[in-house]
Amino acid sequence: MKAKYFISVIGGSKASAADLRIAEEVGGELARAGAAVVCGGLGGVMEAACKGAADAGGLTIGILPGEHRESANPYVQIPIVTGLGFTRNSIVAKSGQAVIAIGGSYGTLSEIAYARISGLPVIGIDTWKMSRRSEEADFILRVDNAREAVRLAIARIEEKAE
Amino acid sequence: MKAKYFISVIGGSKASAADLRIAEEVGGELARAGAAVVCGGLGGVMEAACKGAADAGGLTIGILPGEHRESANPYVQIPIVTGLGFTRNSIVAKSGQAVIAIGGSYGTLSEIAYARISGLPVIGIDTWKMSRRSEEADFILRVDNAREAVRLAIARIEEKAE
Amino acid sequence: MKAKYFISVIGGSKASAADLRIAEEVGGELARAGAAVVCGGLGGVMEAACKGAADAGGLTIGILPGEHRESANPYVQIPIVTGLGFTRNSIVAKSGQAVIAIGGSYGTLSEIAYARISGLPVIGIDTWKMSRRSEEADFILRVDNAREAVRLAIARIEEKAE
Amino acid sequence: MKAKYFISVIGGSKASAADLRIAEEVGGELARAGAAVVCGGLGGVMEAACKGAADAGGLTIGILPGEHRESANPYVQIPIVTGLGFTRNSIVAKSGQAVIAIGGSYGTLSEIAYARISGLPVIGIDTWKMSRRSEEADFILRVDNAREAVRLAIARIEEKAE
Repeated sequence: MKAKYFISVIGGSKASAADLRIAEEVGGELARAGAAVVCGGLGGVMEAACKGAADAGGLTIGILPGEHRESANPYVQIPIVTGLGFTRNSIVAKSGQAVIAIGGSYGTLSEIAYARISGLPVIGIDTWKMSRRSEEADFILRVDNAREAVRLAIARIEEKAE
Repeated sequence: MKAKYFISVIGGSKASAADLRIAEEVGGELARAGAAVVCGGLGGVMEAACKGAADAGGLTIGILPGEHRESANPYVQIPIVTGLGFTRNSIVAKSGQAVIAIGGSYGTLSEIAYARISGLPVIGIDTWKMSRRSEEADFILRVDNAREAVRLAIARIEEKAE
Repeated sequence: MKAKYFISVIGGSKASAADLRIAEEVGGELARAGAAVVCGGLGGVMEAACKGAADAGGLTIGILPGEHRESANPYVQIPIVTGLGFTRNSIVAKSGQAVIAIGGSYGTLSEIAYARISGLPVIGIDTWKMSRRSEEADFILRVDNAREAVRLAIARIEEKAE
Repeated sequence: MKAKYFISVIGGSKASAADLRIAEEVGGELARAGAAVVCGGLGGVMEAACKGAADAGGLTIGILPGEHRESANPYVQIPIVTGLGFTRNSIVAKSGQAVIAIGGSYGTLSEIAYARISGLPVIGIDTWKMSRRSEEADFILRVDNAREAVRLAIARIEEKAE
């Protein structure tokens, strides 16, 4: 019953058709790799990733902002009811061993930041670009498809475990 | 994969042998009833409940106070990493549809309070006694064995669903 | 500008006339003793305590559950916007060096629990009664008037500082 | 006693000499404008901003990540004890009516994100650069000195109030 990996998928509750398609593929790839999907439990990219995972027999965990488990999208199997509003984003990020970001807005930006605070690898598909004053290097591992995102996430988790 | 119910088991990380035995029985009964165990993910009553559930083929979720998934007891299958310290107790309480309290100290008291804030039934086995000034009635549903605790928790969840 | 002490005043947003009168007196006594009032920032006991303090020239801090500073009662001088819902109760408790509980419901119960988790003294005026299984002793320091409550809170803070 | 404005100052606990100088100036300017400084309460930019404000007779609020008020820098007048770790960053951001970011690392990035989630203006001095996929416009109001940062923060607060 224990998933082999826990990987967070982050992105907007409002998302483009392209984002949703990629998110669903990411969910499916994660399931096939034995990785549970951790997400914010709502719609958009979160729902698409959960659907992709559930359809492929995977495990889906939704860290909900509100007070009611009924707010989870229908593909969430494990709803966590936080009541913390957007402050739950830090839990979404740190409950994964790696984070895959797809598009997204300010909520996704906060999750990227929290992933890095916790030292987690962030894989990005067409998501935020950012740089610190003194650093030119991009700390996001950028890929352009679901398979590569999942492959890279797991590779980084395995590297750290060694 | 979706559990039929989610029920929180709360109690001390330091617990008596009697508490631990009951907690393990509660975990087993929950698993056999198709209920996932939600708990704080650490030792004592939390670990005993997870062990009982895992041994019976059930699902176990640990809402961890710290920053590391490695702090979960070995029977936690789904670790949620909050980094919130004891403030995560509110999430432990409200992520269940009912709460079973076994013994416990101040942390357990906070979880009982949060369960009631969220309107969740609290079943107690030899746990805190308390009364509000103006109320004589005990709001904790008191039982003295694991089977009765689980039966009552599920009955209350089913009543609410009707 | 630095208050000499920070003392949390907890109690219901719905409260009896007697509770409100006492809470206002507690606020006034705190202000005269150089102690800032820390509270949940809303109505009822919180507002009465802030009013009593503000009228006596004291400092008032409201740790708000919601997303908007406008939800603070009119006597809050320092609004802290948490967005955490009732989970902010742990912050209300631990941001004081002692806690004075007046009446109250489940939210107050959670704050009493968090005060004790943090090892803070709890002074109670006609509030929750509770006992752990194995302990007969009441951990709440019970008084019946505002002056005694504030005197005792400060005495305990001073003892700890020694 | 009520500050006219509440403005969050964010930036690293490790900071360059230039950042620290600017932060202290920002604190002083805020105090002279009647604005309380809200910050994370620790060292570096937080401490410099508090020092600048306190030296100019202003009000300083520190939203602390840990469990102890003693962890606040010596210029914090109002310590808020959250026990939430870095998750307290959302409270730092949203307890201001505007946010001034000076340099900073991932923690600062999370606070910028939370400021925007709450719709607050972000004024930046030599801080993170970022852009969403679909947007070219920079949402950070960039300035290069303390006086301009404070002027702009207050102007934006006043505009919103109208």
